[in-house]
Amino acid sequence: MPDSWIDLPQDTEFGLATLPYGVYDTGPGDDRGTRIGVAVGSHVLDLGAAALTAGSPHADLLRTPNLDALLAAGRPVWDRVRADLADWLTDPAREEALRPHLVDRASVRLHLPFTVADYVDFYASEHHATNVGRIFRPDQEPLTPNWKHLPIGYHGRSGTIVVSGTDIVRPTGQRKPPTEPSPVFGPSVRLDIEAEVGFVVGTPSPMGGRVGVDGFADHVFGVFLLNDWSSRDLQAWEYVPLGPFLGKSFATSVSPWVVPLAALEAARVEQPAQDPEPLPYLRGTQPWGLDLRLEVRLNGHVVSRPPFSQMYWTAAQQLAHMTVNGASLRTGDVYASGTVSGPEVGQRGCFLELTWSGKEPLRLPDGTERTFLEDGDEVTITATAPGPDGTLVHFGEVSGRILPAV
Amino acid sequence: MPDSWIDLPQDTEFGLATLPYGVYDTGPGDDRGTRIGVAVGSHVLDLGAAALTAGSPHADLLRTPNLDALLAAGRPVWDRVRADLADWLTDPAREEALRPHLVDRASVRLHLPFTVADYVDFYASEHHATNVGRIFRPDQEPLTPNWKHLPIGYHGRSGTIVVSGTDIVRPTGQRKPPTEPSPVFGPSVRLDIEAEVGFVVGTPSPMGGRVGVDGFADHVFGVFLLNDWSSRDLQAWEYVPLGPFLGKSFATSVSPWVVPLAALEAARVEQPAQDPEPLPYLRGTQPWGLDLRLEVRLNGHVVSRPPFSQMYWTAAQQLAHMTVNGASLRTGDVYASGTVSGPEVGQRGCFLELTWSGKEPLRLPDGTERTFLEDGDEVTITATAPGPDGTLVHFGEVSGRILPAV
Repeated sequence: MPDSWIDLPQDTEFGLATLPYGVYDTGPGDDRGTRIGVAVGSHVLDLGAAALTAGSPHADLLRTPNLDALLAAGRPVWDRVRADLADWLTDPAREEALRPHLVDRASVRLHLPFTVADYVDFYASEHHATNVGRIFRPDQEPLTPNWKHLPIGYHGRSGTIVVSGTDIVRPTGQRKPPTEPSPVFGPSVRLDIEAEVGFVVGTPSPMGGRVGVDGFADHVFGVFLLNDWSSRDLQAWEYVPLGPFLGKSFATSVSPWVVPLAALEAARVEQPAQDPEPLPYLRGTQPWGLDLRLEVRLNGHVVSRPPFSQMYWTAAQQLAHMTVNGASLRTGDVYASGTVSGPEVGQRGCFLELTWSGKEPLRLPDGTERTFLEDGDEVTITATAPGPDGTLVHFGEVSGRILPAV
Repeated sequence: MPDSWIDLPQDTEFGLATLPYGVYDTGPGDDRGTRIGVAVGSHVLDLGAAALTAGSPHADLLRTPNLDALLAAGRPVWDRVRADLADWLTDPAREEALRPHLVDRASVRLHLPFTVADYVDFYASEHHATNVGRIFRPDQEPLTPNWKHLPIGYHGRSGTIVVSGTDIVRPTGQRKPPTEPSPVFGPSVRLDIEAEVGFVVGTPSPMGGRVGVDGFADHVFGVFLLNDWSSRDLQAWEYVPLGPFLGKSFATSVSPWVVPLAALEAARVEQPAQDPEPLPYLRGTQPWGLDLRLEVRLNGHVVSRPPFSQMYWTAAQQLAHMTVNGASLRTGDVYASGTVSGPEVGQRGCFLELTWSGKEPLRLPDGTERTFLEDGDEVTITATAPGPDGTLVHFGEVSGRILPAV
């Protein structure tokens, strides 16, 4: 790819290989409303304004307050817009017209980039599911008999998906300490994270139809980071027999920049071997493992480096499973991988695993210890993936700080 | 209440005590788009047109394609619009101006009445939960230890909520027959219904806040019938440990007429006694048991008469529970009661219970038997509740027919 007329250092967070989409305004006093931006180096390009200036045939759907119309437009338009963007940013003749549409990335306020339709959370890391099984059900086999036959998932609450930077109020509810005869009520005392990767559906599918594994790239627009905040004490008491509810529904944070699937070609890898072989509807012809390398920081200290390449089920398999029963897809449907945990202790994607249910506190470099999250704690998840020509694709971050219970 | 200038027989389905809201058009060739209607007798009143004619200050939010704006307007507006409607329909001086805005109810096509935000399904019938526990987990106590402490619920799929009359395609997926070593793939062979009552949230609430039991009438706009179609074979194989997913997500049908909460004053009853006493956040000062009497018909034959008054947890308690962790409410959030089953065999709200997991087939008057649903079967759920002065409030119906798997 030729160089950009924008000064992009080799190690810039968002080089030409990434070009993620987000939604921004410039803060209080900005009366133009939110608009679509593309992160490039230390800038954000006003995509709608740039498209109008450049005479793009897609200017109308890019001059909108969020990504909804772009998501609905489908793969050919996504590819065209991305190709145009690369042209605009590398063509010196465009600089004069486009530079006025760049704003300093540090000056913008980022918003939830699209309207969330349904939200499904999967459970696709064998290491995570095994660890959780050992902790929650120590007298049973850690993996349930269905686990290697289907990507287990469940629906979460769309209405409490929030953008990175939103404070998280510690949830309150029922928990049942083993020493008490009845449940007690109060703020959660085992507040946790789940470091995950999220996917957003662009192209919808009809009720009664199915999307196969190989339909993944036609339907999924892009990828982001997701923190599925979890209250382990609420969850442990409520989740039998119908699954997690209030232990999860208080908040889910997402990173503001959606990385297009097309930016991840160099990150595609074979997923781990699957044994037993899954049923035919879960087999695809192309690898959709993704070599994303996550980092989890607690108050600035790295506490885990979960490897997404180790996930047992791919996002393509999850999409096929989610629709095999005829469930429709809507533009804006979000689904997430489930906690990303690798085989090593330092690769576990939640504190439940990192501290083995609180029994093995984490010692932080500042001398303090943690089992679960304390008020004031800030958790930040970042990720990179291999890009073309030795570059790195960055995902920005999803971050949130814990406020005391109300 | 004075009589209406519309001829309303004493036994009319929708008398002045009900006045439910729906969304309609008049079918192919109607280029006005969908609009809000109120069912009265054998008519539908074009609410937006009537409001404009009558000079209502709320005409703008009623001249819209669905109930979203009315739902968001809140209890004082809901009460004002309902009072105005009663005035208009009983004031002889209004007849000439309003009669042109009546259409024959048999001629309209009804649509999903509002935009569904999140969907939560509860599990609030002790009789149902006990029966299901006995069937699915015969070696354990039928009720899990948490059941009488909190209204168990989980999130379902909003995108596959459809209006009554929509055909239901038999879902396909994995099931694990006990005689097979591995799961098999194919159309569900244990397709079921769940006869439920649904509630729609109008007034939203912020993240981090809570809605108490006594906030129910401020937030909930109205009530309708819901059939939570369920594939018992998909569900049994997938639901441990994270709950039902594909066994439910293929379709949920709702009745098209939303009955305002205000129409149910005469139907309010004390709920069954709760022992143990629930935690304080689940106690209210007013009764919110509701004496709805459901009827379930299979191909025209009544197969069950579930009594909603027997539900252990009320919709007011469910709302308080759903928000106690700080989860926000959005306009259009739907939540449902869970299967309504009474103590008698003929009061069970699903075929899983009615046929005891297929072991005791139902004999239909036409000489055929049923365990679970067959292709071509049509299920219709109706309900009535006591209205003022000995009248009955009707809920219309939620109906759906099974199409063969694709």
